[in-house]
Amino acid sequence: MTMEQPTIGDAFGEMIRDAYAVRTGIGPRPLAGGKYYRPVIEVIERDDGLINGAPADHYLNEPDDWQAYDRRALKLCRGRVLDIGTGAGRIAIELQRHGIPVTGLDTSLGAIEVARKRGLRDTVLNTVDEFSRAAVRYDTFLLLGNNLGLLEGPERAPVMLAALARLAAPGARLVAQGTDPYGTRDPVHVAYHERNRQRGRLGGQLRLRLRYREIASDWFDYLNCSPAEIESLLPGTGWRLKSIDDRDHPYYVAVMELHT
Amino acid sequence: MTMEQPTIGDAFGEMIRDAYAVRTGIGPRPLAGGKYYRPVIEVIERDDGLINGAPADHYLNEPDDWQAYDRRALKLCRGRVLDIGTGAGRIAIELQRHGIPVTGLDTSLGAIEVARKRGLRDTVLNTVDEFSRAAVRYDTFLLLGNNLGLLEGPERAPVMLAALARLAAPGARLVAQGTDPYGTRDPVHVAYHERNRQRGRLGGQLRLRLRYREIASDWFDYLNCSPAEIESLLPGTGWRLKSIDDRDHPYYVAVMELHT
Repeated sequence: MTMEQPTIGDAFGEMIRDAYAVRTGIGPRPLAGGKYYRPVIEVIERDDGLINGAPADHYLNEPDDWQAYDRRALKLCRGRVLDIGTGAGRIAIELQRHGIPVTGLDTSLGAIEVARKRGLRDTVLNTVDEFSRAAVRYDTFLLLGNNLGLLEGPERAPVMLAALARLAAPGARLVAQGTDPYGTRDPVHVAYHERNRQRGRLGGQLRLRLRYREIASDWFDYLNCSPAEIESLLPGTGWRLKSIDDRDHPYYVAVMELHT
Repeated sequence: MTMEQPTIGDAFGEMIRDAYAVRTGIGPRPLAGGKYYRPVIEVIERDDGLINGAPADHYLNEPDDWQAYDRRALKLCRGRVLDIGTGAGRIAIELQRHGIPVTGLDTSLGAIEVARKRGLRDTVLNTVDEFSRAAVRYDTFLLLGNNLGLLEGPERAPVMLAALARLAAPGARLVAQGTDPYGTRDPVHVAYHERNRQRGRLGGQLRLRLRYREIASDWFDYLNCSPAEIESLLPGTGWRLKSIDDRDHPYYVAVMELHT
């Protein structure tokens, strides 16, 4: 008997579409037994064999249900905002509601479709790299919802930061929410960090894929790192660390500014 | 970069232990980021690449939160009861509460430990096959919580039913809750049923493994089938179908009786 691999596709988008259907009643809801509603769970697989599930509904949370650091991060926005990895548009929609000019960017078609249905007007379905050729400039870049992770690691971070620099208006800032993974005493995580370091990676340079029903994403790197590690990725990029808000440790909000 | 396989072990037991810790505060609760509580999610992988997650808490539900067919099934118990796949002991503890003599059997050490902590007195950590050599007889066998699936398929079912016959007092009954999978129009499931049939399996003869954090179960067959298919598995086993309660279709409770 052969065990088949899942189909590679927009796992995140499929999940967001279902989570939106569950929350709003718009679109077909996922069923179990062809009859009962099935909860929408995000399943994340790590390359050491670890798997974790978590309810996906938080991607659609209204500001009252956000973590406090999300709300504090929004106060750091100024000027024109690019929300990177906008997902279902949670953050961008709230900015738009307050009259702040905001673009939501995501590589997931399903997510962008849901963000638009929820009322987000300015959306971009693209990578940051491709989009950085556009003749548009931003004052604030947001990497919230742990999207500091999108910097991936020491190889990718300078490339992405260069793309953001191309999109940056003078004095632009990057507001990124990350997670310091090194406080854990869970032996599974401690061993994983050590395994990563032995391979020349940062300890929290996770290798992940998302799975939702029959669809999987490709494997990708996602960076959980300490504030000190973030700072170590910046030299030569033109970005400088301006502040760290770690009142909700291990979660933190880093602000970087561009000095060219 | 190599993707490692999870460790084979008592994934179900680890999950039940965590779900118990979350519900009761007894034992270490699973953490995210070394700090925040993580929801306990059961992740089930199917051999066509499908994956599903669902909150594990229902394994600990009290009778008020059960499905109606569970409560109706309990009324079908008589005499001494063997609860097969007792899990966290949900069903067996309720029987014990009502003074009904009941044994809870499971192959998961973690589950049996939780069932005992919750107060279940008579527990067996064993397979049905091994336990069927014991000099004990039961009047009612329970396969609730969809555990009709433990019959696996046409090869395994007669072996398991023979083991139950060895444990059976005269006129014993088997009360099994199953799911008829064929009402779905989900193309993923319809294709899976067809794929199974092409391989000489019953359409709903699922091939699954459970994953919880770094642990996976072995792959196993789990049978979702129609009442007609159940009936087709019985000839020659001494067990006869007596009734089907399908008021909550696609879920049903089948009662089989032993005639030797």
